[in-house]
Amino acid sequence: MSFAASVLTLYPEMFPGALGLSLAGRALQAGTWSLETIQIRDFATDRHRTVDDTPAGGGAGMVMRADVLARVIDHASPPGDPRPRLLMSPRGKPLTQARARELAAGPGAVIVCGRFEGIDQRVIEARALEEVSIGDFILSGGEPAALVLLDAVVRLLPGVMGNELSGEEESFENGLLEHPHYTRPQEFEGRPIPEVLISGNHARIAAWRRAESERLTQERRPDLLAAAQGLTK
Amino acid sequence: MSFAASVLTLYPEMFPGALGLSLAGRALQAGTWSLETIQIRDFATDRHRTVDDTPAGGGAGMVMRADVLARVIDHASPPGDPRPRLLMSPRGKPLTQARARELAAGPGAVIVCGRFEGIDQRVIEARALEEVSIGDFILSGGEPAALVLLDAVVRLLPGVMGNELSGEEESFENGLLEHPHYTRPQEFEGRPIPEVLISGNHARIAAWRRAESERLTQERRPDLLAAAQGLTK
Repeated sequence: MSFAASVLTLYPEMFPGALGLSLAGRALQAGTWSLETIQIRDFATDRHRTVDDTPAGGGAGMVMRADVLARVIDHASPPGDPRPRLLMSPRGKPLTQARARELAAGPGAVIVCGRFEGIDQRVIEARALEEVSIGDFILSGGEPAALVLLDAVVRLLPGVMGNELSGEEESFENGLLEHPHYTRPQEFEGRPIPEVLISGNHARIAAWRRAESERLTQERRPDLLAAAQGLTK
Repeated sequence: MSFAASVLTLYPEMFPGALGLSLAGRALQAGTWSLETIQIRDFATDRHRTVDDTPAGGGAGMVMRADVLARVIDHASPPGDPRPRLLMSPRGKPLTQARARELAAGPGAVIVCGRFEGIDQRVIEARALEEVSIGDFILSGGEPAALVLLDAVVRLLPGVMGNELSGEEESFENGLLEHPHYTRPQEFEGRPIPEVLISGNHARIAAWRRAESERLTQERRPDLLAAAQGLTK
């Protein structure tokens, strides 16, 4: 059974976008995953196809209406749909590689892309939307975040990556940032490849890479290192 | 002077993608910012247009060559180019709203999108690339991350957002997650809009929103709350 993504958006033409090319695009063509976009505006009921209104209590911007969103969510994800319902939102739980792996192991995802100031809180609660954040910054809407989430998930689907091993050695898979990489030429602008990497001594190479991973993580992301040490102790 | 983005990529057809629509797309058409894509492969020198090679020291995947990348970076960003040179990388410093604001206040950005297992460490050092991460997950390449970074930056350029005030009240601008939003209808599936928001009492509304922001941040992102309290004390 392939991974089925349904994206609820005011900009269906943003999809598949980058997901239609490279690894994700080939997997889409091969049927490893499917992508459906649903225009939220089609579920408005007035003749202006209104999806938003001014915020209760005042303030800037517009808020997406609970009733319109409930209708489109119920259409995309009828009772019995086993897929998680995600809302891309800077207020959400930060996406992690572990959550991407969980999603990739599941049946797919229904992804709501908000726009404007935000969406009415009542539909988040009434439809049990899982708020997911891709980082501590603000986007023009949920669509670029949905593209990123799907890219992270799709590459983990069986058969998508040419080299399965590759996925296991990367940043975050062991709770550490990845070690530096080098390739030919042997010397670049007077900078040689570190001697250990051309030593042929696999144990030394593995030890060097582990030490570099730990050094980089300590330097740049001590928060991750603390968590990783907790895991391996 | 408009914000000038140059994206170095093996997939120039991924751009402008979502950035060609909505807010960012209108600003692109209006000349508020410009977007140039440069095909990295055009800077390979062999007849196969090779951009990568096997990792020194062994291991899975392929590594992008320092010499090819140095050539394309020097072409895109000659001496005297005041723009920061960014490398989208999960090993980088996490992107924040504050960094997005800094970038938006500057002349633009040169953005290198890596693919494969990674890029040769020596070109990162020799060309002083600033590694930027959009989150603790792995993508198929730097391109979806570059789309997100540019979306976050472009919406902050002068004149891009219809309502300037809107940008100031959102998540992270005050170090807190944003409070919940509500709009009409007054009752949705038996759920009313909280009474305070229809009270017309602006002081009570402001206090409720601040308390909700703090409660949500405490519940979901205590790391942010600790930082925000540090700021306001």
